[in-house]
Order: sequence, then C-alpha cells, then structure tokens
Amino acid sequence: MQYPEPVAKLIDSYMHLPGIGKKTAVRLAFYTIDMNKEDVENFANALHDTKAKLKLCSICGNITEEDPCEICSDPNRDQSQLLVVEQPKDVAIMEKMKDFNGLYHILHGVLSPMEGKGPDDINISSLIRRLQKNEAIKEVIIATNATPEGDATAMYLARLLKPAQIKVTRLARGLSVGSDIEYADEMTLFKAVEGRTEM
Amino acid sequence: MQYPEPVAKLIDSYMHLPGIGKKTAVRLAFYTIDMNKEDVENFANALHDTKAKLKLCSICGNITEEDPCEICSDPNRDQSQLLVVEQPKDVAIMEKMKDFNGLYHILHGVLSPMEGKGPDDINISSLIRRLQKNEAIKEVIIATNATPEGDATAMYLARLLKPAQIKVTRLARGLSVGSDIEYADEMTLFKAVEGRTEM
Repeated sequence: MQYPEPVAKLIDSYMHLPGIGKKTAVRLAFYTIDMNKEDVENFANALHDTKAKLKLCSICGNITEEDPCEICSDPNRDQSQLLVVEQPKDVAIMEKMKDFNGLYHILHGVLSPMEGKGPDDINISSLIRRLQKNEAIKEVIIATNATPEGDATAMYLARLLKPAQIKVTRLARGLSVGSDIEYADEMTLFKAVEGRTEM
Repeated sequence: MQYPEPVAKLIDSYMHLPGIGKKTAVRLAFYTIDMNKEDVENFANALHDTKAKLKLCSICGNITEEDPCEICSDPNRDQSQLLVVEQPKDVAIMEKMKDFNGLYHILHGVLSPMEGKGPDDINISSLIRRLQKNEAIKEVIIATNATPEGDATAMYLARLLKPAQIKVTRLARGLSVGSDIEYADEMTLFKAVEGRTEM
C-alpha cells in the first residue's frame, strides 16, 4: 500500500521546497490533511496567485502586481538615489529599515564565474539603460551581499559606472551592532578598522 | 512598502505549517516565486485535492479516496488481525515494513487527560462496534506510540476488550535494532530485560 494519490502528490510538492526532505514532507502533508479546509484553500490560492498575479516591474525588476511597481511610480520617493540589490526580497529588507527613500534596481543574481553567470545573465543592461535615460539619478548605492560574489559584482558595477560621472557608493563593512569584538572574524575586524569614523 | 499581496498571503500560509517561522516562510515564499509555473500549479492542486478528494474510511478511519479504503476492501488481507494505531500516517509506516497483512483501526488521537481528551474524543466506539459486528477478528494488536499517553490508551483498550474474550497484544518494548546499550535510556533497558527472549 502506498499513500493515497493526493497525499503522495502533496508530499512530492513539499519535497520541492528547499531544506525539506522526505520525512518532513510526509509530516507536513499529514499536518495539511488535518488543517481546516479554509486555510488549505487559502494556501492553494496563494500559490496560484503567486504565478498568476505577480510580474517583474519593467523599470526596477522588482516583483509586483502593477507595472511599474509601487516604488517606481511613487513621486514622493527620492529620484536621485538608486539602491542596487541582488534579489527582490532584499528590497523588503531595506524597506523595513524605513530610512532609505530612494529607488531600487534588482539584479536577480550576482556575477559568478563558478556558476557561469556573467554580466549578461543578470539585470545589468537595464540598469545602464535606466541611468542613460534618467538624469535625475545622482548616486548609485550598491547593496549586494558581503560575499565574494557580491563584492565582485559591486566592483564590476563601480568600474562600469565610473566613466559616466555617477557617484557610486556601497554599504559599509564593520561590526554588527550589538556584537562582541571577541567573536568578529578577522576580515570583519579589518574592515571595521579600515572604515573607522571620527567621533 | 509591504510585500505585494500575493506574496504576503503566501508567507502567511507557509507560517501556518508546523516548525515554520516568519523568516523561513519569507524564504520559502520567495523561493516559490522563482519556481517554474508547472511545479507551483501542481503544488496548489495537490493542496486543493487533499481537501476535495480525501475522506475517512467508514470502517477503519484511515484517509482514503474510496470508501471503504484499499485495505478494508482487500479480501487477501488477514481478516483475523486488527492493528490499532494513533494516526493515519502510522498505517503507512507499518505498511512499509511489509510484514503485517491484517487490518487496521485508526484512533485519530490518544487519551490525554492533560488536553481533556477522553475515550469519546477518539475513534474507540467505532472500534467496539467493529469488533461486535465482525467475529472474524481474533487478535487486536495495539500499536500506539511508546509515550505515556500511548501507553495509557493501550491499557484502557486492553481492559475494555478483555471481557469480550479477544486476544489483545501490544508491540514489544526494547532496544532499537543497531543501537548501543550505552546510549539506551533506563526505561528502555528495563523493558528490554523484562521482555528478554530465549535463544
């Protein structure tokens, strides 16, 4: 005897998610069977809507229901600053900080020679076109992750944009707020000393 | 700015699952956005079908597409043995062992005074009716979990069925196969000694 077909299919779908193996998938499937009908239908609809209603903003590349997205079409945002991130979820993280009021550009990846990802595989050409068309942008803030690939992508962009006389900056490296020097790794400490500020 | 509505709803749905907090839900939601459309639709349909197509077998209480279920309607199963488990998923686990060929009865829970769960809250009355109607059943094997609640439920069932002259057995307690004595807890060791077999 195997699982009834709907259960087998649900287990299979849960296994498609990252970090979920067979045992967890079985547990989640049987949990789902016991959930109330409304919650399960909401879940199914949310999955469906994710593919049916979401698209990428033709300006910044963020995921959105309306094109252009909420941020690109908001005249109250500071049109002179453009923050470049790797992924759509990074926009939500930056917005949670509530301090940045400029515009975004989403690369949808980073340069990664190991994975064969070059400049044409990420959203760079649209960034260049955007900067050429839009003279209001005075500063490009590169907010790629602090990983080797993120750093390489930041360097590549900086070199690409320098000739166009646009100010290019990147997020500071240093100690996390609330962290102990004792537990900081050497590279972080080095960057913290290098980037020290006068007080 | 918040997440677009379909994303927010999907995050919320993922958070309904056990062991999935906000951060993991966000990660899964953004992963879902990047999944191919077919996989997401299959996932949504599997969720929908779970509620639309599955019901409980009116004989044993297992989840099934057809009532009575595959096992209850199979004449090749040994009609004299009835194995009682806590949850539908336990049936799949026992079936994987491939050694038991009798019938099942699913309690959908255990007695738990702490959670206010008494005999009327789990599938016991249908078990009694089934035994009264069906004289072919000669042995009831109780396979509740080796937890205090599982043990209490097993004791309760044993006392309830004894007067009816039905043989009531339960799964052996002892060392897991492949385990070291060094790491066995005292109760398991005690049960292993108590249940020792001649060789």
